[in-house]
Amino acid sequence: MSKSQTVLDHTGAGTCCAPRVQVHLPSQQPGQALCCTPLSVGPLSLEQAEQVAPLLKALADPVRLRLMSLVASREGGEACVCDLTGAFDLSQPTISHHLKVLHEAGLLDREKRGVWVYYRACANALASLGVLIGSPAS
Amino acid sequence: MSKSQTVLDHTGAGTCCAPRVQVHLPSQQPGQALCCTPLSVGPLSLEQAEQVAPLLKALADPVRLRLMSLVASREGGEACVCDLTGAFDLSQPTISHHLKVLHEAGLLDREKRGVWVYYRACANALASLGVLIGSPAS
Repeated sequence: MSKSQTVLDHTGAGTCCAPRVQVHLPSQQPGQALCCTPLSVGPLSLEQAEQVAPLLKALADPVRLRLMSLVASREGGEACVCDLTGAFDLSQPTISHHLKVLHEAGLLDREKRGVWVYYRACANALASLGVLIGSPAS
Repeated sequence: MSKSQTVLDHTGAGTCCAPRVQVHLPSQQPGQALCCTPLSVGPLSLEQAEQVAPLLKALADPVRLRLMSLVASREGGEACVCDLTGAFDLSQPTISHHLKVLHEAGLLDREKRGVWVYYRACANALASLGVLIGSPAS
């Protein structure tokens, strides 16, 4: 499963997770998807927690949170570095570094067009992470 | 607003946030609540991002993620350190340190009873964080 093919599976048809909701998150290892239940539904294994933590760590920075919100909420759903630097008192290489961290975590897709790289929020990854953290146990 | 009084407000009746969903997250400063829209709905301000980041940072650790899932998914919704140490190859003071980090971030409530401290997941804080990260723009 590629980074952009993260999905939510509410069918409960899978074999590795228990009740109701399966959460598939992007993995930094190609071909390997993370599978776990929301925090309030069942305990995470060590392996699952070690796969989720890097996604949260990537988001747990004020600049990267703002970058994610700027890209994810942008009309058309994508942005290049040139669209983003104006919102920060930071150099373009610094912004590019933070975007790279988000991309490597699987939270931003990117595509090179001409001289610019365009970034797009991985909506399924964000949705999955949201369910993992916030889905009620009921 | 206390740490445990975090709420989701879908009415749009508030004054500080724009469309549809307001997210109120716990703050480490008493009396101050964080207000912002989901990442895909609108850009976070620097101040908002600086309030959200510590919550994510507290969760962005495999031990703390497992602790949150163990407490949040537990029958009755609460646990003391004595219930949790068995799941880890870590000392009780280390587990207590991680629980303290989650409590100070506003993700776990705690109450002392006799010689033990009991922890309870702040369901509203987790729900709000989930909406902030995962709520779709539509």
